[in-house]
Parts: sequence; C-alpha cells; structure tokens
Amino acid sequence: MGERSKMEQKMAYLDNAATTRVCQAAAEAAARMMRECFGNPSSLHALGVASARELMKSREAAAALLGCQEECVVFTSGGSESNNLAIFGASQAKIRRGKKIVTTAAEHSSVAAAMKRLSETGFQVTYVAPDASGCVDPQAIADAVDSETTLVSMMLVNNETGAIFPVQETAQLIRRKNPETLIHCDGVQAFGKLPLRVSRMDVDLMSVSGHKICGPKGSGALYVRRGARILPLIYGGGQERGLRSGTESLPMIAAFGAACAELSGKVPENLKRVQALSGMLREKLAAIEGVRINSPEDASPYILNISVPGYRSETMLHFLESRGVYVSSGSACSKGAASPVLEAMGLSPRLIDSALRVSMIYDTTQEELLQLVQGLREGISSVAHR
Amino acid sequence: MGERSKMEQKMAYLDNAATTRVCQAAAEAAARMMRECFGNPSSLHALGVASARELMKSREAAAALLGCQEECVVFTSGGSESNNLAIFGASQAKIRRGKKIVTTAAEHSSVAAAMKRLSETGFQVTYVAPDASGCVDPQAIADAVDSETTLVSMMLVNNETGAIFPVQETAQLIRRKNPETLIHCDGVQAFGKLPLRVSRMDVDLMSVSGHKICGPKGSGALYVRRGARILPLIYGGGQERGLRSGTESLPMIAAFGAACAELSGKVPENLKRVQALSGMLREKLAAIEGVRINSPEDASPYILNISVPGYRSETMLHFLESRGVYVSSGSACSKGAASPVLEAMGLSPRLIDSALRVSMIYDTTQEELLQLVQGLREGISSVAHR
Repeated sequence: MGERSKMEQKMAYLDNAATTRVCQAAAEAAARMMRECFGNPSSLHALGVASARELMKSREAAAALLGCQEECVVFTSGGSESNNLAIFGASQAKIRRGKKIVTTAAEHSSVAAAMKRLSETGFQVTYVAPDASGCVDPQAIADAVDSETTLVSMMLVNNETGAIFPVQETAQLIRRKNPETLIHCDGVQAFGKLPLRVSRMDVDLMSVSGHKICGPKGSGALYVRRGARILPLIYGGGQERGLRSGTESLPMIAAFGAACAELSGKVPENLKRVQALSGMLREKLAAIEGVRINSPEDASPYILNISVPGYRSETMLHFLESRGVYVSSGSACSKGAASPVLEAMGLSPRLIDSALRVSMIYDTTQEELLQLVQGLREGISSVAHR
Repeated sequence: MGERSKMEQKMAYLDNAATTRVCQAAAEAAARMMRECFGNPSSLHALGVASARELMKSREAAAALLGCQEECVVFTSGGSESNNLAIFGASQAKIRRGKKIVTTAAEHSSVAAAMKRLSETGFQVTYVAPDASGCVDPQAIADAVDSETTLVSMMLVNNETGAIFPVQETAQLIRRKNPETLIHCDGVQAFGKLPLRVSRMDVDLMSVSGHKICGPKGSGALYVRRGARILPLIYGGGQERGLRSGTESLPMIAAFGAACAELSGKVPENLKRVQALSGMLREKLAAIEGVRINSPEDASPYILNISVPGYRSETMLHFLESRGVYVSSGSACSKGAASPVLEAMGLSPRLIDSALRVSMIYDTTQEELLQLVQGLREGISSVAHR
C-alpha cells in the first residue's frame, strides 16, 4: 500500500460486468417493498393487490427496456437462473422432437455448465468456436443445426471481451434451416447497454440480469416469445404464468424495474458516452508499451479486455487495487479459473495469464479510466516482471 | 366501508403465513448490500472479499437458527426453490437406485407440483393422506417406503392448518426400513417459530424461507446434511458448493441473515407468547356461534384455520379487510383455489368454502386478534348468509 492510505483514495470501480452498485432509485424501491408494500401478490386482500400492481409496473419497465410486451417477461432470481430456465426448459419441452443442441464455445458458465449437464443426460451438444477476434460465424452455427436440433443458445455480448455476436443474422439462418428450433440468447451483458428490441431479433428466449445494470444481485428475467413453449425449472404456485413458481420477490423485482426505468430512453446516449470513454481508454492504453487489447474493435464499449504479458492477472489486479482501481481477472463468475473464452479465441497462455477485464457502466467517469491508466503504468514499472 | 375510513383504522395483519413485513434490521442489511458492500463475492479484489465475508456472516446466522453447521446451508431464492432443489436434486441424484418417492397429500404446492412433474417423467409417487385432524401417521409413511424408494418428502408444519407432522419419528422408521432413502422436510412454516435443531432431526434436507420470518421475499435456504448428495437445479459458476450457481444475492442473503439473527435465542419465548395469544383467540372464537376451528389442538400456534359455514371465504375476507383485518382464504400461494389440504382432511365442501387462515408472527398483538374477533362477529351478523 505504501504511504498512501486506501481510505484517502478515490475508488475507480471498473468491474461493472461482474456486478454494479445499485442505483438510488432501485434501492429505494426495494426498501419500500420490504417495509411498506409487503403483501404477497397472490393474497386476495388489498395488500396483495397493491403488491400485484407493483409487480405489473416492474414488468412494464422491464418489457420497455427489452423491447417486448409485458406478458413475455418472466421474472427470475438472475441471469444464471434465466439461462438455466431457458436451456433446460426448452430442451425438456422439445425432447420428443430431438436431443441435439448447438451453442458456442464462448458462453457464460451458466450456459456452458447447463450444456455439460444436458450432454451427461443424453443430449448431443455442438460447440461452435469463436474466431481469433472472439466472434462467431453465423453460417458455422446454422451449419451445425439439423432437423433434430431443438435449441440454439448464443450470447449477444461476450462477458469477457465484449465481442458482439451476430444473433439476429444467425437466427435468420437457423429459421431457414429448421423453423422448429428454439433460439435462446444470453443477453445479460447487452441489456440496458446496447439498444435492444428483442421482439424484432427473431429469438424465442433472452436472459437478462438486474445486477449488471445497477439493479440488485438476485434480480433478472427471461424473455419468452409469445407461443414459445418451455417447461419451468421451479414448480409450485404457478406464479409468472406457471414458468417460475414461488412468491414473487417484490423487493428484487421492484428494484429491477426501477433500474430498468432509470435507463428508459437513455440507452443510446449512454452508449455514445461510453463509446467515447472507451475510445479514449483504448488510445491511452495503446500508448503504454506492453499492453495488448484483446477485445475486438467493434466490441461493446462497456467491456475492454486487455493483457499485460509478463504480469500475472492476479498480481496486477491487486496492484491496481492498491491504487483504488477495481478490475477483474477474466470473468469474476468463476473465481480465478483460466478463461475458456480467451482460450477458444486462440490466445497464447502468456496473454491469457495476464488478462484483465475493464468494465464500465453508464456513470463511469473519465477520471476513473485515467486512474486505471496511471495504475497500469505504475504497475508495469514496479511489479516484478516474469 | 361504511362511514369509517380505511385510513383511520389500525391494521391487523394476520396473514403472516403468506408473507411478513420485513424487519428493520433485515431491510437495513439489504440496503447496505445494495449501496455500500456491493462487490461480487467471486471477485478477487477487496470489494469481493468484503461481500464474501458478509455471505459467511449470514450463513452463520442461518445455520444457528437451523441448528446445523454453516457448510450445510445452501442459500436459494426462497422456499419454493428450496423444495424444488431438494426434490429434483435428490431424485435425480439417486435415479439409478430407484424411481419411487413417498410424500403426503398435504404438502405445499411447490412440493406437490414438483411431485406431479416427477410422476409425469416416470417416477412412482405415493401420497399418504392426513387423518381428520390434519396429521399424518409415521407408520403409514414408513409402510409406503420400500427398497426402491429414494426420497421421502414431508413438511414439519402444515401451511394451512399449522398441524405439526411427526418428522423425526417418521425419519427413524424410514431409516430402519431403507437407510438409503433421502429424507426431505419442508420446514418453511416451522423455521424461526418452533425450536429447531435440524442436525438432530435425522433428515437429510430441509427447506426454509426468509419471508415467513420477517426477511424479504426472494430469500431462503436449503439445509443439506453433510454427505447427502443431490444435484443442482441451476448450473453455472459453482456458487454455494456447486449446488446453487448464480451470483449470490447479497441484499437478500444479508437480509435473511439479519432476520435470522433477530430471532437468535428468542424462538422459545416468542413461541410461548404466541401460544398464549393463540389460546386466547381460540377461546374468543369458541364463544362465537357459527365459527369452527379446523386446526388441531396441538398445531403450531402461529397458524389457526377456521371456518364460518355459510359465509364464503372470499366474502368474509373482504368484509374483514374493510375492518382493517387481513387474513387469508386457505393458502395465498394458490390464488383462490380450493384447499387440497382441507379436502385431504375430509372436511365438507361447506367448511372448505368458508375456511379462513389466521396467521401470526412474533410481534402480533392481542389488539390485532381482538380486532379480528370483532370483525368476525360483525361479519356474521351483517354479511349475507348462504
């Protein structure tokens, strides 16, 4: 830590793809649901009715940000649950039609692990690898689809590199090949960041999460296109149109709704702002010898993956932390494990071992990024090189 | 409504088995996790470490109230998820040993619906009916267990009547019959209300929920005995010892932990207080002509199921609501549907159609109960009798 106390430093929180600080409006909504509007939405009395109304309000806000109708929003406890619900729910609902599934080798662990489980239970899962830029070829995915393929799952924005996958184009190719195939998109890192209109994207299912957009950890949703039939993961009282039983978590749902409402109409301007910041950061980093940018040029500007070859990710992460800068070594979702995404991109072990993920949110400031640049410069000159 | 304004009335909230108001300590814990301690527990930096520490603190509080070791607590999004995780997780983990399951006909919808799904996928589920008092016979359950029975699921306190099921006694009989059978207990309505020591109860799995004990809707846990192997419902980053992936919902978990801590050491005294209140209520109700008590004498005092034959549940519920009294018509978990539990007890349709559930929590007051008694009296004399 040196002479500078951690407490005196301004914090540069650049790990927003791992999780965000909850915005004031969302925190207030949760508090109100816990202490005031606390009825069970299934209760027949006025307290239940008031809660059911809040539920509807949140559903409208989430639907607006997704670009779909309210009835297509199924609230869940987060992105991982949404991904699992989509994957198990679709594959089980279509099991009589076939047991073939297509996905990419760059998916989030909650998709990858669900796929692994399916393959252990008799499903045939085909993984399409990303190219060196971290992107996937729509035709390669469509080629892997055949008449027995019941589900394709691909993400929209990669959580480690920010690479934007051509979901809409791929979906069109898949529809031509097999119109019965359900198409799921993990939209967690795109939602609230890229302008979305899910109803026009030609996908059947899209997972989103609250805690990546300044809502709380424990909130999320699955978009289910009208007419797409999937089975639930959690059975019971039949909440969420039977797709997600259990008393609705009003505190989480209302906070998620408030976080969505905060972004209403602001996604394009936020994107422009973050694009400018990201461009500035890329320039500054290009000027530092020994820093390499792993994210493709046309990635989501909210995520920038870099390597500082010779400096282990964790060592640099902790050095930066001592300077008040918080970033991630690969994906925070799998504690310290080597990134399968960077591996799939064909990066050398030296680049993978030194990878850092810088991730922004709509209120990220230029100062925070400059603090990172300064920290990296200092780290490169002071941390032991290996 | 008459001349009395709803706003002027004191509220008598007696629907605590449906859900509770979140206690101040729990609401504050959630707020702190949303705005201050907002790191992802899987992140390697200090913000992640701080969150991981909060997670551990909550796990300790939940374990203390359950009466088990911390490592046996798996946090979930609530009781329904816990029940589904237990039932699907156990039955799938043991699928090579058999496909027979035993349960009761009085379980919560999240158990009953999961069982229905299992029976649709080739499992043989045996339902043991409760007797006229709403209780189940330990021997009847043990008799239904054979060498292929991999799971028995029975609740500890019935959510509609408060009947206490002889879980420990039944578990001992099951162990003698088939020591390989996993035993799951839905402890949602018992947790934090009856003194529990799950590690001594001889069950493998126990579901508990936060929002029945003044924690938030969206919080809960599954106790998993050391050595009991089940499969997850949600796959991914491997959180919660691999049994429940997904970024931990620190706001919900910390609030749940705080709600548990609030009850620390107070369960016996609260029980005594609520027992006295319930006894008083039973006496007052016995004095009203036309009110019948459906709950057995030795039920949990936190729940009292009554019928007012001739007065439809929903009509009386809304009349009481106009008097500021909030109760439930059967279980709030299945909106307005006739209670399968009361049916299983052999109650006449006339009693079932007029059933009301009165449910208390540790800070329920005598005034609230007297307000209910007064409301019932007024309802009986003014509501149209059919």
